[in-house]
Amino acid sequence: MKYNSKELKELPARFRGAMMNCISGFKSASLIATKSKSGVSNLAIFNSVHHIGANPPIMGFILRPLTVERHTFENIIETGYYTINHIHSDIIKKAHQTAAKYDKDQSEFSEIGLDEDYIDDFPAPFVKSAKIKIGIKYLNHYEIKENGTVQVLGSAEEIHFPEEIQADDGWLDLAKADTVAINGLDSYYKAEKLARYTYAVPEKMPEKI
Amino acid sequence: MKYNSKELKELPARFRGAMMNCISGFKSASLIATKSKSGVSNLAIFNSVHHIGANPPIMGFILRPLTVERHTFENIIETGYYTINHIHSDIIKKAHQTAAKYDKDQSEFSEIGLDEDYIDDFPAPFVKSAKIKIGIKYLNHYEIKENGTVQVLGSAEEIHFPEEIQADDGWLDLAKADTVAINGLDSYYKAEKLARYTYAVPEKMPEKI
Repeated sequence: MKYNSKELKELPARFRGAMMNCISGFKSASLIATKSKSGVSNLAIFNSVHHIGANPPIMGFILRPLTVERHTFENIIETGYYTINHIHSDIIKKAHQTAAKYDKDQSEFSEIGLDEDYIDDFPAPFVKSAKIKIGIKYLNHYEIKENGTVQVLGSAEEIHFPEEIQADDGWLDLAKADTVAINGLDSYYKAEKLARYTYAVPEKMPEKI
Repeated sequence: MKYNSKELKELPARFRGAMMNCISGFKSASLIATKSKSGVSNLAIFNSVHHIGANPPIMGFILRPLTVERHTFENIIETGYYTINHIHSDIIKKAHQTAAKYDKDQSEFSEIGLDEDYIDDFPAPFVKSAKIKIGIKYLNHYEIKENGTVQVLGSAEEIHFPEEIQADDGWLDLAKADTVAINGLDSYYKAEKLARYTYAVPEKMPEKI
């Protein structure tokens, strides 16, 4: 199957949207949790959390254009903090439902039935049932002028995960935490490890670790 | 297991790097192919290709700081074109090996044993054995000032995939094309579909499509 530039432009918007959201490959599956200044918690699914750097530890995510209310972003700007919580297979249906347009005075946590977790004095709620959770401090955001999307950056202030998923060299086996991957806007995949390879050098092919 | 901000800072750089590259969740697995003005092809693995928009169709990827030679980026700026090719399970070892530091006059295609494919008059090579391939025209890049990484944006000019992976509404089942997901810098996962859900609305829980 081939679509060229002209054919892509002429496709119905929904069809093109469904296809183009898949064509970039598998994505991370995260719930981003925040709390407004007035105390209402918010929970929203994102498939765009990505790694920016390890030193300092910086993570990014992409927001759609700010032409409609974006409760997650408003809360981040108001309070300066948010959490990223990995989605595992037991909560994919509830996680998907956080994409529904609830009002700003409704908390997706209580509407959908996921519990908030406040750890020590971190200012944003975590998702209690999540196995991998990251507390983030907002750093900056960049508007992507080509289409008005926004890249939001934050620094990882604390991370939580089950000890048994970590290897001696720091690496984490996400499959052991049952973290899922997202394809497109609406489909969820379980991951099974095929191989981990040694650092690549020109002289020889990598070996399995 | 918990690491706070102070503990993260004090970890050995490699340990922190291995961990932080996993903590953002599963990532896309792509080979980006380019050709220099002088005619040398280049192939490099990226785990940071992401969706920016469907209308117009824009995809991004993240480059590490431009403090060392970045052949992929140099070729993109020189020629204006590149291709994104999904990695499937049969080529993960070869794909991983493209991360080795080959000289600029060496083509990773021939060094590693992956065939180039020139489709119609598209100016950059595709990976012949890849099942999902996207021809991209460079649009812009943004420097992320927090750590010097660069987000490169391009528009999808043509896309190729096996017809049987597409649903009637445009959605693509990446597992049917055997597209893998990456965890961290060096591990490759097979994906198995758990569920695809209907569009989320507040009144009721989503159903499987």
